Amino acid sequence: MIYNDTIVALATSSGSGAIAIIRLSGADSITICAKFFKSVYNKNLNKQKTHTILLGHIIDGDRTIDEVLVSVFKNPHSYTGENIVEISCHGSTFIQQEIIQLFLRNGCRIANAGEFTLRAFLNGKLDLSQAEAVADLISSDNEASHQIAMQQMRGGFSSEIAKLRQELLNFASLIELELDFSEEDVEFADRTAFKELIERIIFVLKRLIDSFAVGNVIKNGIPVAIIGEPNVGKSTLLNALLNEDRAIVSEIAGTTRDSIEDELTIGGIGFRFIDTAGIRDTQDVVESMGIQKTFEKSEKAQVIIYLFDASAVNNNPALVESTNLEISKIKIRFPQKAFILIANKIDQADQAFITTSFDHENLLLLSAKENIGIDALKEKLLTFVNTGALRNNDTIITNSRHYDALIKALEEIQKVKYGLETGLSGDLMAIDIRQALYHFGEITGEITNDDLLGNIFANFCIGK
Amino acid sequence: MIYNDTIVALATSSGSGAIAIIRLSGADSITICAKFFKSVYNKNLNKQKTHTILLGHIIDGDRTIDEVLVSVFKNPHSYTGENIVEISCHGSTFIQQEIIQLFLRNGCRIANAGEFTLRAFLNGKLDLSQAEAVADLISSDNEASHQIAMQQMRGGFSSEIAKLRQELLNFASLIELELDFSEEDVEFADRTAFKELIERIIFVLKRLIDSFAVGNVIKNGIPVAIIGEPNVGKSTLLNALLNEDRAIVSEIAGTTRDSIEDELTIGGIGFRFIDTAGIRDTQDVVESMGIQKTFEKSEKAQVIIYLFDASAVNNNPALVESTNLEISKIKIRFPQKAFILIANKIDQADQAFITTSFDHENLLLLSAKENIGIDALKEKLLTFVNTGALRNNDTIITNSRHYDALIKALEEIQKVKYGLETGLSGDLMAIDIRQALYHFGEITGEITNDDLLGNIFANFCIGK
Repeated sequence: MIYNDTIVALATSSGSGAIAIIRLSGADSITICAKFFKSVYNKNLNKQKTHTILLGHIIDGDRTIDEVLVSVFKNPHSYTGENIVEISCHGSTFIQQEIIQLFLRNGCRIANAGEFTLRAFLNGKLDLSQAEAVADLISSDNEASHQIAMQQMRGGFSSEIAKLRQELLNFASLIELELDFSEEDVEFADRTAFKELIERIIFVLKRLIDSFAVGNVIKNGIPVAIIGEPNVGKSTLLNALLNEDRAIVSEIAGTTRDSIEDELTIGGIGFRFIDTAGIRDTQDVVESMGIQKTFEKSEKAQVIIYLFDASAVNNNPALVESTNLEISKIKIRFPQKAFILIANKIDQADQAFITTSFDHENLLLLSAKENIGIDALKEKLLTFVNTGALRNNDTIITNSRHYDALIKALEEIQKVKYGLETGLSGDLMAIDIRQALYHFGEITGEITNDDLLGNIFANFCIGK
Repeated sequence: MIYNDTIVALATSSGSGAIAIIRLSGADSITICAKFFKSVYNKNLNKQKTHTILLGHIIDGDRTIDEVLVSVFKNPHSYTGENIVEISCHGSTFIQQEIIQLFLRNGCRIANAGEFTLRAFLNGKLDLSQAEAVADLISSDNEASHQIAMQQMRGGFSSEIAKLRQELLNFASLIELELDFSEEDVEFADRTAFKELIERIIFVLKRLIDSFAVGNVIKNGIPVAIIGEPNVGKSTLLNALLNEDRAIVSEIAGTTRDSIEDELTIGGIGFRFIDTAGIRDTQDVVESMGIQKTFEKSEKAQVIIYLFDASAVNNNPALVESTNLEISKIKIRFPQKAFILIANKIDQADQAFITTSFDHENLLLLSAKENIGIDALKEKLLTFVNTGALRNNDTIITNSRHYDALIKALEEIQKVKYGLETGLSGDLMAIDIRQALYHFGEITGEITNDDLLGNIFANFCIGK
């Protein structure tokens, strides 16, 4: 990888808007832009101070492409650490293309996905986990995932790892020093302090590893299965939940929600609803096959909502019994999952009868159509989310790459601990410590390689 | 309309991107933003110079919403002429919403469509036709419409109108002065010079009015109807034309073309293809009904492409005759429209036979499937476009509001001319001159009203 060339890309969302930002980064970005920029007050772009803006025109020969604002950021005071020029042009896709193509013809190349952030990492502006948080931040679509990404970007998690790594590194060098003096049988490394550090590292690693389950769910949305027989009101319930959310979103003009009809945010937490329509197709043929389908779908969920039609079972002991049987099957199958039982169409049933007939802990009386009990359901969903960690501002891991590295680091550290307890020789212990250091370094990017970087930044959007 | 409040809007295209720009405008925009902005170097946003940028965080209480760059533009050196703050944040829709809502809760209101540009107009930063050009510029999707909008935004057209209006105004005041001295029978206004001015105005108005036909077509794309019987290759031809265009577009990453499958740009000019599938449904029933449908569709086109299957008519004199009959019907019906005759599937026919059998001026031998003759068709389409005016850098009118005002101004000016020639009394002539002045003023915005402004800026996007 060579990074002395100048890259260009559209930094704002593609499509037409009032304005768009085209970003150039590289040692020559300012001089390249200056060739095609004419300030309205005849100022020289090359002589601009960092963090200043000039009004002018982008001109290609005798053709004026657009009136623009050009912002200058000078090495090292920029996002990438290189010279950066940001051109704020009118947001027509035609103009965006014309300007980008002008620079492509004149010494720039199009930026790879995430290349601005990659350069920021390579120039020491961000560590690797902070760089990864940038992508998470851009894709965050609710309060919880945003907060985790923000925390990670500000370095809370990686600075903790980096600090532990540094302490471990100090002990590693002392132990390796002992090896050089092995004939003299000296101990430079204080074994008690070392043991204490190892315990501390294990504690931190376990906490971070445990946080992944919560973090992953928060990042991707908590999967919820709404199950039940046909016509009990599953879709109506989903719409009742979604419509209110949509109304809030549309208050801000220009905000569009693309095909995320089955996701909604409650109290800043994303919930993802799993379609369980499968039960409908097979139930007439073999009842157990229908249940089997529902089981498969429910397997992916963290919360199961079982919906039944209260107006149908009302004063009908036989239906009450068969419904309770279905409920029991699901609860037995998924004892570990959060379970909510909903008696829908409660406005057409006897509440006392329903409450008595369905003696379950999390029974909710609800009417999706009449919008009765929807808020209670939302509150119930929120109570199932372990947001304790979030509220306590604890670090939460959401990245599977970090998770893998932490698991491997923990394995190595536990070998070190075992070695200490069993009086393993220094040379063997040194190998385990080096392995642990390696996995720590993978997270923050102190240890890296082109393949790893390629994989990480390929997931970024162009222009970041 | 009251404009001392502070407005906020997303200025970049909605959706997720690397970065997004949120723009505030109004006297208090900097002080409002400063309350929620913490510079990383503890700089005070309120004390920033105009056209400078600060790095920092947008903070709501103890919650950090995002790391941002804040650009400051101070009254009057900004787009609107008011204080402007542009916040460059990470491009997640969630973050965009959070920041906008933060400001909505704290003294800002959401901007109306085009309100930034409306304020620029009201503060004298742009005249009305320049403001209108901003919207055209943003929606321009090809070289020609872009160039016209750019020219109009830079004021070429409106300054010409404003200059003529000023000259006319001078004469008007002299003539009205004469009325005050009517008993003395003096002539302050030099009638020869006045006649000369009127002639000049008529010349300019006629040229501008004439340019509207070209301008309108360039702005909206030149309508082209591809007609012909089923299976002669209409869709294949359209795809052959479009695919090449798409390949070019996709060279720039992040450029998406939304549902404009029937538009393409050739040599910087937009062409809009009109669907003429209607002929297929009815031809089996009543032949003339099918033709009628095609006629209706063709009515909207400026260029008609008639496609026939050369492989089918090859060495078949009966089919040649009936095809020539169809062609004649269309040519007779639309004598004023540009007409291109295409012998498709020429790779499966005898070129000499086809050329002899179809003795038409604009016959093209083509194979859409084998990509033979596509370039020749593109060149032919371009020759039908009157781009003379464009090439000569003449002013072209594209706005129907301007067109209407120019037509009305011309009517009044011609009354003045008639009055001059027939020795009409000064007081009657003054009325006609005032009317002409009024219509000139409508274009540049010297004469305006709330309804007119409302109509114009309602067509803008939010954030501009």
